[in-house]
Amino acid sequence: MGATIRILGLDPGLARMGWGVIDMSGTRLTHVAHGVLTSNAKAELAARLMALHELLCAVIEEHRPAAISVEQAFIAKDPSAALKLGHARAIALLAAAQAGLDVAEYAPNHIKKCVVGVGHAGKDQVGMMVRRLLPTARVEAADAADALAAAIAHAHLAGTRAKIMAALV
Amino acid sequence: MGATIRILGLDPGLARMGWGVIDMSGTRLTHVAHGVLTSNAKAELAARLMALHELLCAVIEEHRPAAISVEQAFIAKDPSAALKLGHARAIALLAAAQAGLDVAEYAPNHIKKCVVGVGHAGKDQVGMMVRRLLPTARVEAADAADALAAAIAHAHLAGTRAKIMAALV
Repeated sequence: MGATIRILGLDPGLARMGWGVIDMSGTRLTHVAHGVLTSNAKAELAARLMALHELLCAVIEEHRPAAISVEQAFIAKDPSAALKLGHARAIALLAAAQAGLDVAEYAPNHIKKCVVGVGHAGKDQVGMMVRRLLPTARVEAADAADALAAAIAHAHLAGTRAKIMAALV
Repeated sequence: MGATIRILGLDPGLARMGWGVIDMSGTRLTHVAHGVLTSNAKAELAARLMALHELLCAVIEEHRPAAISVEQAFIAKDPSAALKLGHARAIALLAAAQAGLDVAEYAPNHIKKCVVGVGHAGKDQVGMMVRRLLPTARVEAADAADALAAAIAHAHLAGTRAKIMAALV
């Protein structure tokens, strides 16, 4: 059934950055770990970004994923929120590129469609399906559930790609 | 007149990141170097951020500034532009924090007021005044002129602070 592929999903945010690691072996998904990286809202922005970067590099170092899946930025109506999100996403993308990992970005609706079946699903439905797909995960934080959802979406796409490749052989 | 303080000014952007280094010795400002770091618009976002980070770390390594001055984000009306700017600023702030440098952020109007004398000055006026204040600079790119302007604004503030401290002794 081929090798196991480890995927790290990320839900970037400046105050809270959700992360989740899964293993994909054929069509089988296994939960590995998840968590939320936080930065001190009272610290200077530069210090917060450095803290998030260090924490994320430590997660990558510990779990050694083969790929990273990041939710594509939802373009908020509020430019100041978009600016903050941009800061957090840059740290996620930089850490991934520095570790030499492929970075896949998926639109929020695409992730929801992969995980729940419909693109306009709510946060609760995403969390519920993540818990069903990864029963050993015991995810509580919504940020971590979203990160695992991003990893699952990448696994689906990788699985589909593998099937297409197999059919072409 | 005390020691020379080296200041790196930055004008962050994803496609073009202006930088400029000046030395401040008492009230005297000397141009050291400036340039524009660019990233390949056709490359993946993660790769572009890594390239900018590497280039900026090399500038810091070469010129060893004591402080970094960054133009505070002008909150664009367009959230997608704000998101892009957020990515670029995060790289600037991260590289500064990683080098252990103090990061000062100034509002665009504050920088213009320091350099030109009025907060609503145009880009051309900023460039002209930067050329007058740093006659040996030969700045052509507007991004580099803006970066030098951020460095000059920081020097002004540091100079004012030193005067206040001296008056208090």
